[in-house]
Amino acid sequence: MSNAILLLSCPDSHGIVSEVTTFVTKHSGNIVFCDQYTDTNDNMFFMRIEWEMDGCDLDEDGFNTVFDPIADKYSISYNLYFDDHKPSVALYVTKQDHCLQEILWRSRQGEFNGEIACIISNHADLENVAKTFDIPFYHVPKTKDNRTEAEHKEYRILKNHNVELVVLAKYMQIISDDFVSRFQNNLINIHHSFLPAFEGAKPYHRAHDRGVKLIGSTVHYVTGQLDKGPIIDQDVKRVSHKDSVDKFVRLGRDLEKLLLVKGITLHLERRLLVYKNRTIVFE
Amino acid sequence: MSNAILLLSCPDSHGIVSEVTTFVTKHSGNIVFCDQYTDTNDNMFFMRIEWEMDGCDLDEDGFNTVFDPIADKYSISYNLYFDDHKPSVALYVTKQDHCLQEILWRSRQGEFNGEIACIISNHADLENVAKTFDIPFYHVPKTKDNRTEAEHKEYRILKNHNVELVVLAKYMQIISDDFVSRFQNNLINIHHSFLPAFEGAKPYHRAHDRGVKLIGSTVHYVTGQLDKGPIIDQDVKRVSHKDSVDKFVRLGRDLEKLLLVKGITLHLERRLLVYKNRTIVFE
Amino acid sequence: MSNAILLLSCPDSHGIVSEVTTFVTKHSGNIVFCDQYTDTNDNMFFMRIEWEMDGCDLDEDGFNTVFDPIADKYSISYNLYFDDHKPSVALYVTKQDHCLQEILWRSRQGEFNGEIACIISNHADLENVAKTFDIPFYHVPKTKDNRTEAEHKEYRILKNHNVELVVLAKYMQIISDDFVSRFQNNLINIHHSFLPAFEGAKPYHRAHDRGVKLIGSTVHYVTGQLDKGPIIDQDVKRVSHKDSVDKFVRLGRDLEKLLLVKGITLHLERRLLVYKNRTIVFE
Amino acid sequence: MSNAILLLSCPDSHGIVSEVTTFVTKHSGNIVFCDQYTDTNDNMFFMRIEWEMDGCDLDEDGFNTVFDPIADKYSISYNLYFDDHKPSVALYVTKQDHCLQEILWRSRQGEFNGEIACIISNHADLENVAKTFDIPFYHVPKTKDNRTEAEHKEYRILKNHNVELVVLAKYMQIISDDFVSRFQNNLINIHHSFLPAFEGAKPYHRAHDRGVKLIGSTVHYVTGQLDKGPIIDQDVKRVSHKDSVDKFVRLGRDLEKLLLVKGITLHLERRLLVYKNRTIVFE
Repeated sequence: MSNAILLLSCPDSHGIVSEVTTFVTKHSGNIVFCDQYTDTNDNMFFMRIEWEMDGCDLDEDGFNTVFDPIADKYSISYNLYFDDHKPSVALYVTKQDHCLQEILWRSRQGEFNGEIACIISNHADLENVAKTFDIPFYHVPKTKDNRTEAEHKEYRILKNHNVELVVLAKYMQIISDDFVSRFQNNLINIHHSFLPAFEGAKPYHRAHDRGVKLIGSTVHYVTGQLDKGPIIDQDVKRVSHKDSVDKFVRLGRDLEKLLLVKGITLHLERRLLVYKNRTIVFE
Repeated sequence: MSNAILLLSCPDSHGIVSEVTTFVTKHSGNIVFCDQYTDTNDNMFFMRIEWEMDGCDLDEDGFNTVFDPIADKYSISYNLYFDDHKPSVALYVTKQDHCLQEILWRSRQGEFNGEIACIISNHADLENVAKTFDIPFYHVPKTKDNRTEAEHKEYRILKNHNVELVVLAKYMQIISDDFVSRFQNNLINIHHSFLPAFEGAKPYHRAHDRGVKLIGSTVHYVTGQLDKGPIIDQDVKRVSHKDSVDKFVRLGRDLEKLLLVKGITLHLERRLLVYKNRTIVFE
Repeated sequence: MSNAILLLSCPDSHGIVSEVTTFVTKHSGNIVFCDQYTDTNDNMFFMRIEWEMDGCDLDEDGFNTVFDPIADKYSISYNLYFDDHKPSVALYVTKQDHCLQEILWRSRQGEFNGEIACIISNHADLENVAKTFDIPFYHVPKTKDNRTEAEHKEYRILKNHNVELVVLAKYMQIISDDFVSRFQNNLINIHHSFLPAFEGAKPYHRAHDRGVKLIGSTVHYVTGQLDKGPIIDQDVKRVSHKDSVDKFVRLGRDLEKLLLVKGITLHLERRLLVYKNRTIVFE
Repeated sequence: MSNAILLLSCPDSHGIVSEVTTFVTKHSGNIVFCDQYTDTNDNMFFMRIEWEMDGCDLDEDGFNTVFDPIADKYSISYNLYFDDHKPSVALYVTKQDHCLQEILWRSRQGEFNGEIACIISNHADLENVAKTFDIPFYHVPKTKDNRTEAEHKEYRILKNHNVELVVLAKYMQIISDDFVSRFQNNLINIHHSFLPAFEGAKPYHRAHDRGVKLIGSTVHYVTGQLDKGPIIDQDVKRVSHKDSVDKFVRLGRDLEKLLLVKGITLHLERRLLVYKNRTIVFE
């Protein structure tokens, strides 16, 4: 049997935890996770609650009807998920394969609560990797002139595969605002710097010039503003004056692939809530 | 106004979260923290719930009477704390002052939800440090022959200061079983190795002999079995073949003092539950 | 043109650095790396010196003749390597593929100064992975009764491939003393614990029972004593009470594969010297 | 007996290592450390060599005369130090005492190869801390109008104490270009962010707003450009959405004090060379 996961946010007020947990319990749901966070500056309340559907008399269709009175009372915004639904994921790549390899291997291990449905690339280089793992690969070349047309071709691919989450796994192309708005909070990117340091292009080169002693990487949701979306996670690795830019790139790959996997995992396990430009991570 | 903190454990069953949060809400307590954990191997449930006492109609004396029906229903063991009660803490030291300095400085900064009530040592060396921070210092020498007598002297000191938590801040003496049992789950030690590696004496020497590439430190509750008590936290630092045992000791001091401070902080904020030989840390 | 790398050790005395660097310079070698370490307890000196062969009048065959007078003078033991010689590496695996995948992917990236010559396994499960990367795969089943015979079969395979380095990439079988002695200081293993903690079997289970807050992994040379060989590198990852043994295993895989890659890299770049039961790492 | 330390840089060319080590050996110096680095982009060579003065026939006064022929031959810039000379260090503070406490405690432990000669502050708050450790404390108030006059007062203090290294240990005032140029490569600051992220004021507030998952700190030499000087070392600490700005500040203090100590230690052990806007760290 599956678990249900409810992610909610609302203005903070007394009694919400009690009301929500009692609601679940009354409907015979056994709560297996319940965590909350209050942003005391903005007086906002956030919650993730997960319960077993075995024996529970709630279902997807009827949930709104029974929960909306509570939602209305507290001005709650919410999303309900069931963990037996495995979202389709699209991977966008260009020529580098370290993130792609790692994600496909993880997926085959069964580590994700989702399916890698397709791979889209502006180059044909990684088609063989896709073939090895038996994942459909679409080569959609992009130039300045054909961007809109190319994205529309991609929309059709994504629709055909019922894609819910798009992962930019070292995709070296700019994403249009239209694309971003279609996949709001469902579009994850890996940036090869410790944001907000070295936003933009060639972060390892600039990190090397600056003489940093740690290099970093950041997995984040994509918004209309380049490299400024909500950060999901970050990590760093020690470097020294002896390390060349190439060594930075090589060391950085380990950070990038593990962080991107973590971002995908947290998203698919419905552990992420975006508020303003930040993420709340229910781990 | 203060906050109340309830730490509880019981066999896992449906409805506990709802029942406890509803109980608090009914008594007009605004819940500001609520986290839980279920040990699925042992089918045990653990919870930390914190609420504001402002407006709440519960109080320390009457709590048991109103909560015990729920406790009985679910076979709950619990402890209730109020964060305006600042427990008295005793520090045990010998000759090394790095942990002592750090703890006393933190205390003066107001970082602990408790008061350093006294310092007890088997040597007189650190009396000056105590004086600088205006904390009573007791020199209680210990030999093989006078251990029991010395401990009884210490018991009187601890009682006079109403000590609730004893911290072994580099105390180089064995603690008797009697002492341990009097301060069960209220006796914290810092061990200068990454337990269970290098249990016992001279861990840095043995780590150096073994050629490790990371040294570690462990803050833990003390039980009757030396170095085997529940681990509260651990951390490590990178070392190389170039580092001597003395360098290990020096680097290790940074680990030790920061970890011990973290252990004390978590304990005084009532974020620690001991189950079997492990800690559950509600962060 | 290639670089030459000289790894040497001898009793410490005045003038060695000058003598060795002058020797290289006299033979027109441009020194690009020169690092040394003195073990002051044992009064032993260790050095790694690397120079460009372009323009240098030394060669492999004649080196001994011209260097031995210096070696004799200082009682130097040494090994000379040329980085255009790419050693053949054999990978031993059983059923887990995370280290294998990582190593093969790295090798294809050109990250190693060596060639993965063959894969040997006591099970057939990973033959497909080998095929994907076009590496010969040998299935050599092992039982209590056929160990010696099986190892002799392996010796022939290793000889046919001119294997110089054997990497146990999650090989779940005991290695005989005979095997160990044939590949002394050329046999690398990854152990899934922070050695010397949890030597032996099922370290993640035992770490979970002990309630550790960090799990670790260790890459080391194999000696006759199980899990007691010279440590090459170690790393750790934070865990909490919420993490199951399965989660430990999953998190540990990331440590294991990256550490094993690091061990192989350091070995193939001739940055490792073993002294007693420790490694000197010239990074 | 003392050790001599020579830090040198020059255009890269054949034979330097041999020439320098042979020079030391000929003068009967026993080399105990010898490390080098070549910047292959700029074709620059850097070296740190340390030898025992016991038995060595070089001395401070005569060194230039005998070494300059070599220096001229290779266009070497160099600095010579003797580790029995303990430089005087001035600490600049304002109101926060965490770095001050840590540095003074370390100094009393004998961890620095230098003496804390005086403390200068634009506020009187930390005079008591200075008194505890018996270090002269100078209160030099600063306003927009008296900056130049105040700095001249400070120059006299620094001169009276023969100060060679100035450490800004949470000094919340801008330093003039004149001051910076007088203490070029001898002026160390701790910045409470992971530079170049959050240069300038209130980095913890901005890090919190940006929703980072790691906070950092940077110890660096001060140049005329604010927060842009050569980085000596950096470190980070994990934070979560639950942590307030105040918690960032509190966690950041641990980073700051340990990093600043590390920067001071490396400088006083003569392990730092500045090239362009970067440091070469001979560890």
